[in-house]
Amino acid sequence: MEDDASGLFAPDRVAVVGATDREGAVGRAIVTNLADFDGDVVAVNPGREEVLGYDCYPDLQTAPDADLAVVVVPPSVVVDAVRDAGEAGVRNVVVITAGFSETGSEGADRERDLAAVADDYDLNLVGPNSLGVLSTPSGLNATFGPSNALPGSLSFMSQSGAFITAVLDWANDQGIGFKDVVSLGNKAVMDETDFLRQWHDDAETNVVLGYLEGIEDGREFIDTAREVTEDTPAVVVKSGRTEAGAQAASSHTGTIAGSEAAYEAGFEQAGVVRAENVQELFDFARALDGLPLPDSEEVAVVTNAGGPGVMATDAVGDARLSMASFGDDTIDALSEMLPAEGNVYNPVDVLGDAGVERFADALDTVLGSEDVGCAVVVAAPTAVLDFAELAEVLAERQAEHGKPVVACLMGGERTERAADALSAAGIPNYFDPARAVDSLDALAVQRAVEAREYEEPAEFDVDRERAREILTDAADRGSRRLGVEAMDLLDAYGIPTPEGEVVDDPADAVWVANDIDGDVVMKIVSPDILHKSDIGGVKVGVPDDEVRDAYEDLVTRAKNYQPDATILGVQVQEMVDTDAGTETILGVNRDPQFGPLVLFGLGGIFVEVLEDTSVRVAPVSGREADEMIDDLDSAPLLRGARGREPADEEAITDAVQRLSQLVTDFPAILELDVNPLLATADGVQALDVRLTIDPEQL
Amino acid sequence: MEDDASGLFAPDRVAVVGATDREGAVGRAIVTNLADFDGDVVAVNPGREEVLGYDCYPDLQTAPDADLAVVVVPPSVVVDAVRDAGEAGVRNVVVITAGFSETGSEGADRERDLAAVADDYDLNLVGPNSLGVLSTPSGLNATFGPSNALPGSLSFMSQSGAFITAVLDWANDQGIGFKDVVSLGNKAVMDETDFLRQWHDDAETNVVLGYLEGIEDGREFIDTAREVTEDTPAVVVKSGRTEAGAQAASSHTGTIAGSEAAYEAGFEQAGVVRAENVQELFDFARALDGLPLPDSEEVAVVTNAGGPGVMATDAVGDARLSMASFGDDTIDALSEMLPAEGNVYNPVDVLGDAGVERFADALDTVLGSEDVGCAVVVAAPTAVLDFAELAEVLAERQAEHGKPVVACLMGGERTERAADALSAAGIPNYFDPARAVDSLDALAVQRAVEAREYEEPAEFDVDRERAREILTDAADRGSRRLGVEAMDLLDAYGIPTPEGEVVDDPADAVWVANDIDGDVVMKIVSPDILHKSDIGGVKVGVPDDEVRDAYEDLVTRAKNYQPDATILGVQVQEMVDTDAGTETILGVNRDPQFGPLVLFGLGGIFVEVLEDTSVRVAPVSGREADEMIDDLDSAPLLRGARGREPADEEAITDAVQRLSQLVTDFPAILELDVNPLLATADGVQALDVRLTIDPEQL
Repeated sequence: MEDDASGLFAPDRVAVVGATDREGAVGRAIVTNLADFDGDVVAVNPGREEVLGYDCYPDLQTAPDADLAVVVVPPSVVVDAVRDAGEAGVRNVVVITAGFSETGSEGADRERDLAAVADDYDLNLVGPNSLGVLSTPSGLNATFGPSNALPGSLSFMSQSGAFITAVLDWANDQGIGFKDVVSLGNKAVMDETDFLRQWHDDAETNVVLGYLEGIEDGREFIDTAREVTEDTPAVVVKSGRTEAGAQAASSHTGTIAGSEAAYEAGFEQAGVVRAENVQELFDFARALDGLPLPDSEEVAVVTNAGGPGVMATDAVGDARLSMASFGDDTIDALSEMLPAEGNVYNPVDVLGDAGVERFADALDTVLGSEDVGCAVVVAAPTAVLDFAELAEVLAERQAEHGKPVVACLMGGERTERAADALSAAGIPNYFDPARAVDSLDALAVQRAVEAREYEEPAEFDVDRERAREILTDAADRGSRRLGVEAMDLLDAYGIPTPEGEVVDDPADAVWVANDIDGDVVMKIVSPDILHKSDIGGVKVGVPDDEVRDAYEDLVTRAKNYQPDATILGVQVQEMVDTDAGTETILGVNRDPQFGPLVLFGLGGIFVEVLEDTSVRVAPVSGREADEMIDDLDSAPLLRGARGREPADEEAITDAVQRLSQLVTDFPAILELDVNPLLATADGVQALDVRLTIDPEQL
Repeated sequence: MEDDASGLFAPDRVAVVGATDREGAVGRAIVTNLADFDGDVVAVNPGREEVLGYDCYPDLQTAPDADLAVVVVPPSVVVDAVRDAGEAGVRNVVVITAGFSETGSEGADRERDLAAVADDYDLNLVGPNSLGVLSTPSGLNATFGPSNALPGSLSFMSQSGAFITAVLDWANDQGIGFKDVVSLGNKAVMDETDFLRQWHDDAETNVVLGYLEGIEDGREFIDTAREVTEDTPAVVVKSGRTEAGAQAASSHTGTIAGSEAAYEAGFEQAGVVRAENVQELFDFARALDGLPLPDSEEVAVVTNAGGPGVMATDAVGDARLSMASFGDDTIDALSEMLPAEGNVYNPVDVLGDAGVERFADALDTVLGSEDVGCAVVVAAPTAVLDFAELAEVLAERQAEHGKPVVACLMGGERTERAADALSAAGIPNYFDPARAVDSLDALAVQRAVEAREYEEPAEFDVDRERAREILTDAADRGSRRLGVEAMDLLDAYGIPTPEGEVVDDPADAVWVANDIDGDVVMKIVSPDILHKSDIGGVKVGVPDDEVRDAYEDLVTRAKNYQPDATILGVQVQEMVDTDAGTETILGVNRDPQFGPLVLFGLGGIFVEVLEDTSVRVAPVSGREADEMIDDLDSAPLLRGARGREPADEEAITDAVQRLSQLVTDFPAILELDVNPLLATADGVQALDVRLTIDPEQL
């Protein structure tokens, strides 16, 4: 694929391969939709000399040089057609034709061939199974949908072509315009990450919108989106959020979607503004398109109606926003301008007899205050208030103060008279105060994304070779599941473990025990014995002089229990007082899209019953590890709630990052659980570990 | 107040007291708005002979008999005007005038006088500080707002007059009609409960809508609403849900709102469908007005577009609904009618080339299946699908099968062509699949409300006299805070407590201890010593022969610690092994609107850190007590999670109901905490209790 895909949206000449004038054919719809294109259009079809007034050529070699080929030939000849495009020097190809991976294994083979050809010729290829692409500045509508788009600064990618047709029909009605629109189709070559990159470089795109059912390469998406979202908002609806939805999405696209937890973590790390539904997708996109970002999350509500003002306040309470607390200057200024019955605290009530002037003065005052980052104006219709004039005032004041203002001019016909002025100023207006406030909330999310400093995941000084040896040894033994015998793996990556070792000789056991202060814990170590306690395979509080006997006894019990069990030895470990700290869990599993996910939470009921865990895609940075603790409802228990000694959070986040580095270094580790990781005021200790490896990835 | 308030909405003659033709006066606006009224209008104003063409009388005595008086005179003469109305035999009065309790103590006094007069004359009085009332069948618009309402079957009450003006302007534009509208104002006499009752009896009202900032009498509201909602849906936005919102509401209305937990519990017990915001209020109301209730919560999704179908499925996953799982018959039938690439499982994909026929057949099949309770039809625009025809099909199939269908015909202009047919059939249509599904969800909520059997709170056989004695004794001692000395109170109401007693003599202590198997726990009992353990006021595991010494020692320690402490004695109690069960908390506090609230949850971190508690307004029925356990995230810990022995849930719900009965019987109990209530497989035991009483209520 080429780095620059702008030729997809602003080509000089488009060739429609499979163009036809047959009624009802997709190849006709494409040609018809290209009528308003600023550049040249040529048809390619060996059976025709002309299609709908355009010159038609038998193949791309004979046609004049095109920089975009739209392919609508039958599935069996698509690969050939794309190869021809490559040969003819066309760099950008949109494959409209369906009948690829979405139809079964034969189609999947064809799609692989298609991707290989695109790779050979370094093509920017969209699809197959795409509705097409569209770009308003050049008048390009290379889709077979029924609608064109209005011009605008939103660029929109969708994994559903039908959704694009729906959105365009609706958006035209709403006056919402687009810069580029692309139907991603099966994403054989170009995917969401490519378009994020493309639109980041595009000065005419203000906001990227996406409807996605899955992400091809999660880590690449995060790394790209992180950079994009530092200055360009990306709002995404990811469908298949719920279990039912994920099932439906998988049967629809044939792909296995990653877990919702992975998407949630991945979008958060990528700085993507996530929309739960279609309404939010466009509400958020319009706010991000039209409004400046707020300086702070402090909202001022200005209203002529107590009740609706309270509703807006509730919505602020539901959001990440908070109600601005006015300083004395602001209160004094409002007191001077408002009648005595007005409310000079937030929400500011300018009263039902307020005209536009009073709204303007109050808005000026609150926007001028450094305590206020943004404002909602909530107005009920009254005889003395002209909504159209009010709209002008909002536009002026917003421009003047450079702070976002959203509107809730509550009415029907009289509100419509205000629509043009608001829309020209980029100010969203909703009947429901909650929707207006939610738009501000999206701005606050984007503000937080842009404000956060990117931090490279730390590279700790670890003993990677020793770790590799432990894993290779296990693989050589034929082990895929490892237990405490792998504690050294944690040690190699600097995650603290109790003093002790796995030994395979009673004399060594005594030697190790002598080296440890106090009594020891001894456990049989065998990949074939999972529930050690049940067979008496664990001895607690063994004094030094009983270690040898204990060793023999543990081995005997294990052999009696399962004569053919592989016995790796016995773990001799210092006694750890688990009551001295909080048991946490640190785990890893792999997501098909995002790769290794690191999970942290409190142990026992918190994980199993309350499902209070936090997940991030590895590698995890220090800031992200901090956020993982913050995310937990049970975090106060690590922070001194109920008279506990606060845990050493730095030791926890250190362990999180080191584990993240371990699983990033070794893709062979499929799953890993440190349970418990005991967190105390003095640090952490991994008391037990289990992992699953894939020897082939070593 | 009279029982029947229908005269407010369908009077024969309306008298406007304070009518005037002065430009800009409220009294003029009211008279003007009455132009379309079917009945007679008379003006009352001593300074005029005629107002805007209506005969004007100096007072109500000289005017012809009216059955509704609308009062718009200055605040200082409102009470007199209302008294005149009473004298003249007018039964229904709406006080528009503001300047009462919302303005301070003088206004509050005037409001009390007003209520007293209304009581004297048995008046149905709305307001003061009301925008007025409106009823479409009689053409009555006795408001001073700028808009009238379209006819319809929603009846709407609002504590904000401004919100009514906003809603009417907007609703007229949306084609939403109303039966009655009332601006509640300060609710000096008639409140939300009165109008619930009124509209329950009104055959022309299908759905009751409310915008409320508070509820006057929570228990009365629950008792009334419970009956109303058995067949008439009530959808309510309660503002001031959040802390910020509650503060704003309180400064706006001057009332102290009850806690959000109380409102949440109260609305749930009342069967009210709660809307979070204005959009939900009207979305839910329209669905409940236009659609039949579903037989089940099983949803079928029928779509021509995979992506939007997945979005609808996600929305089902978010709701209380679930995706219907089709039986073989349904799958076979769908397989026969759909092309091979279609999806015959739920969501049903009829494919992009589907015309109206295929939609109709698929919809027929799923609605005809007993596995399906309701359906969402999601359609993207295509060349072969006519949305207007599809709308007709939805209306027909819904009528035929009697199951609710909601629509998501995703488009702009082409969707508008379908609007009339959908609207005539009561079928909501939204661009966003989530909004369509949420409408079905509201139907499912109402279905559950109507399906649940009302259960009288049980009346347990308790020793009320003994309880009264314990409370009176404490009051006589001057105690307001009681501790373990009140364990007998629980015992009197049949809540199990450990064996033991509070004694004030060492000999009695020995006698009690002898009667208890094994060692005992002894605690000093003094209202002045809160932290017994800190002063060595608790002795655990005392054998019988040390009881006497222990008694003396406890008393000595207490006296040394605080020489003037009142010492009630020593509690001698059996040893309870708290590890044998789960520590729970059972508590009560009083809400200003709803009265006693019963709270249940697991103890320690679950209450204090995770705030995982469940609340109901007392008296609590058996079903409600069951639901209180269900509501807890930590409920699995009472039900055998992680290998625990399941607790005796019946014993828990029994204790919840008995405590509910206790606090209902004794309003003097302001707060009470049983902490812990130990729940084991064999029952519950209250191990400690604290309460606060108000002796004046005994």
